[in-house]
Amino acid sequence: MDRKGILIVISGFSGAGKGTLVKGLMSRYTNYAFSISATTRKPRAGEENGVEYFFKTREEFMNMIDNNKLIEYAQYVGNFYGTPKEYVDSQLDSGKDVILEIEIQGALKVKEKFPDTLLLFVTPPNATVLKQRLVGRGTEDFETIQCRLRRATQEAEGIEQYDYLIVNDDLDECIVHTHNIIQGEHSRASRNISKIEQIREELKSF
Amino acid sequence: MDRKGILIVISGFSGAGKGTLVKGLMSRYTNYAFSISATTRKPRAGEENGVEYFFKTREEFMNMIDNNKLIEYAQYVGNFYGTPKEYVDSQLDSGKDVILEIEIQGALKVKEKFPDTLLLFVTPPNATVLKQRLVGRGTEDFETIQCRLRRATQEAEGIEQYDYLIVNDDLDECIVHTHNIIQGEHSRASRNISKIEQIREELKSF
Repeated sequence: MDRKGILIVISGFSGAGKGTLVKGLMSRYTNYAFSISATTRKPRAGEENGVEYFFKTREEFMNMIDNNKLIEYAQYVGNFYGTPKEYVDSQLDSGKDVILEIEIQGALKVKEKFPDTLLLFVTPPNATVLKQRLVGRGTEDFETIQCRLRRATQEAEGIEQYDYLIVNDDLDECIVHTHNIIQGEHSRASRNISKIEQIREELKSF
Repeated sequence: MDRKGILIVISGFSGAGKGTLVKGLMSRYTNYAFSISATTRKPRAGEENGVEYFFKTREEFMNMIDNNKLIEYAQYVGNFYGTPKEYVDSQLDSGKDVILEIEIQGALKVKEKFPDTLLLFVTPPNATVLKQRLVGRGTEDFETIQCRLRRATQEAEGIEQYDYLIVNDDLDECIVHTHNIIQGEHSRASRNISKIEQIREELKSF
């Protein structure tokens, strides 16, 4: 391939269908790689190292932080989660577009460190559908629902900082549309500076 | 339609196939309107008012300038050419993406006045192909070729100010790719501020 991959962060409301969207992209197209997180959480039954996560001891994880081997990391319920840099870099260099599925705080940290990162925010078509999905099937208690609504409200505060707002109404259409957005981004002038300079130099040489 | 159209400026090197690309977009998809320019140039045989151009007297054209009825205008070989605002606005309001085919100076003026304008620059796959097209079929004299190369060199100076660099290698692929870029742009967070605010307000009201 003659082009470098794009680092993509997909975030979105819980219940927006991020996971299904990512799986759809991965299975339908060959140009994507999914970034596997490192974590200090213990593997659950059936989870394999290098499949769901790279499982690390706390010491190994701290070493990764100290040696700048993580693009971003966060602590959640006592465990660390992070994005290993090496895997992402090698996939980008081979031309793959690499997808990270992380929440907004991590997304903004990645964008700060790598301004070329493409930030996608996934939402259901409207807030009523969102509420239905947050409320769930009537099995959740009041507190859980309130907690989810609070979280969605917080998440909504940062949407403008994303590059694109992806409305997931029909999943199939959403997969194709997201793919088109990402492939279109490869043609952004700001991602083709060396190609532009090359054309310019050649023109001058004639 | 529940969305407003996008104003699109297509520029590019002479010989890049802009015109064919625009015709392809217009004939293959229903969401585009092509902006017809106003001009003080006399109609040529077969040209109809409102088809190739809106033909205006110099006085009429000056009135359009004075009454802010042109998005941009320029003088070229003694004649005025400009983009009538009313037609563009009405098409955008009806949800059509409106295409202007103008050169870089006009493109940058439009972007300054309407920052939401999408600027696309079309180029052949590389400078050798570009040179072949500029040099033509061997029928042009040295001066004409030099003039074309100079113009391309000037045009190349401004490419970074465009949003996308469209490489026209295979025309069919280029039409689809350009369409995908434009449709993807409709999902830009910056073009969906009111939708984002609406989701936010609804979430707060729950």
